Amino acid sequence: MRILVEIAYQGNQFLGFQIQQQGRTVQQQFEKILKRMHKRHVRIHPTSRTDRGVHAYQQFFHFDTELNIDNQQWQYAMNRFLPDDIYVKNVQTVEENFHCRYDCVGKRYRYKVYQGEHRNPFKSGLETFINSDLDLSKMNEAAHHFIGTHDFTGFCSQKTEVESKVRTLYQSEVVQTETGFDYVVTGSGFLYNMVRVLVAFLIEVGKGKRQPDEVPQLLEEKNRNNVPFTAPAEGLYLEKIYLSPESLTEEFGNDIKIHLKKSLEND
Amino acid sequence: MRILVEIAYQGNQFLGFQIQQQGRTVQQQFEKILKRMHKRHVRIHPTSRTDRGVHAYQQFFHFDTELNIDNQQWQYAMNRFLPDDIYVKNVQTVEENFHCRYDCVGKRYRYKVYQGEHRNPFKSGLETFINSDLDLSKMNEAAHHFIGTHDFTGFCSQKTEVESKVRTLYQSEVVQTETGFDYVVTGSGFLYNMVRVLVAFLIEVGKGKRQPDEVPQLLEEKNRNNVPFTAPAEGLYLEKIYLSPESLTEEFGNDIKIHLKKSLEND
Repeated sequence: MRILVEIAYQGNQFLGFQIQQQGRTVQQQFEKILKRMHKRHVRIHPTSRTDRGVHAYQQFFHFDTELNIDNQQWQYAMNRFLPDDIYVKNVQTVEENFHCRYDCVGKRYRYKVYQGEHRNPFKSGLETFINSDLDLSKMNEAAHHFIGTHDFTGFCSQKTEVESKVRTLYQSEVVQTETGFDYVVTGSGFLYNMVRVLVAFLIEVGKGKRQPDEVPQLLEEKNRNNVPFTAPAEGLYLEKIYLSPESLTEEFGNDIKIHLKKSLEND
Repeated sequence: MRILVEIAYQGNQFLGFQIQQQGRTVQQQFEKILKRMHKRHVRIHPTSRTDRGVHAYQQFFHFDTELNIDNQQWQYAMNRFLPDDIYVKNVQTVEENFHCRYDCVGKRYRYKVYQGEHRNPFKSGLETFINSDLDLSKMNEAAHHFIGTHDFTGFCSQKTEVESKVRTLYQSEVVQTETGFDYVVTGSGFLYNMVRVLVAFLIEVGKGKRQPDEVPQLLEEKNRNNVPFTAPAEGLYLEKIYLSPESLTEEFGNDIKIHLKKSLEND
């Protein structure tokens, strides 16, 4: 039986999602609990492997089990043994051919920045602090230039190892908040460090060091050296996972380009 | 020259304020920076030694220096080298006979609880979660019974080693918040674990397991075994330090009993 688990976590005490030789990771916390319950190793498969310090309001993983436990009991058992910075929001049974990674057609991230004269120690690890004034409307203008299907080679880590760096962004906007701004971005998928590079670039725009209309050429040039900064992980939240084309078209209309990973694999 | 430093910190990554053989403490962070600046060890003297996991919206310490650095520069230099979970809010020069511990005539603590069906991983380390319904008005009634001068032997850790366990509370109330409640308590001083024991007792009242009118007798009996629980550190914030009798009377009137530590010492 395949079980789909919806979780949330505060990332600042984790080395990231993926299990490592040493250190505290989200995967490790779950696999430890599942091992105890199954008396054998059980591997979990997430939709997304968040990096060290990155948070998730919504994240999914699946695993296969022979145990006969109902969904509410799974949720209860996991929450009972999890540390306080992870929470299981929902558990459901899915078809055997469902796969968290291949059925994920889109993701939304939110990057949180607070501004002001003084750093707030209670936001440490949870939001990024910037003490300069920023032109949010210019930043939003720049953010809109990223909407659509582009090759994001110039806006991701040079360590990114994937065949295609073409991704489609359905939403890319800067929203003013009480204490600063959020950058909200929804896309078919994201390259390594891509959101953090986009944010760092938008902050440069906010400071007046870059102009919104530079974006098309920077996308064209595909050179990361033109966009050298990366915003820190602490402000980054994985906010929503789209597990079906319908969930994306409901929000962004029927005309959007959807990247199906399953059909690509069958090509 | 004696320097008074006002700070705030998020306590969940500290073993407490006081320096220890091993591990991360607030005192250690400051003494490391001051040692580098003075080329010798410089001891800092806080108003209060908060425990592991306890936060401070306001805390003070003083130290003596021969360096000729202005107050703004002290603030800048310390914030530059401090980790993100501590912040220096203000630096001022004080008289040589000022002493953070002996000039402190009162403190206010706030204990934060959020309620609901689900634990929130983003409040981990910052607020205490309770998933049961609580009768806040009964809790507030019980809280009011603690106002005044009492022997708090029955409401502190049995490890407390002080001559007198008599303290005066000027304020003791339960305030409803958007997601739960805060317990706000101002007093001449607090015994080891006292606020956390008071909160644990108030929660028992909220659940209907204790009655508000039991408080006078429990104070009278001075037996900690009657009040066996201690609320976790994560919800506890040192909120305000009163460094002069005037600051207390301004808020609570001229009739209150003030405990002066300096004069006690001279007795």
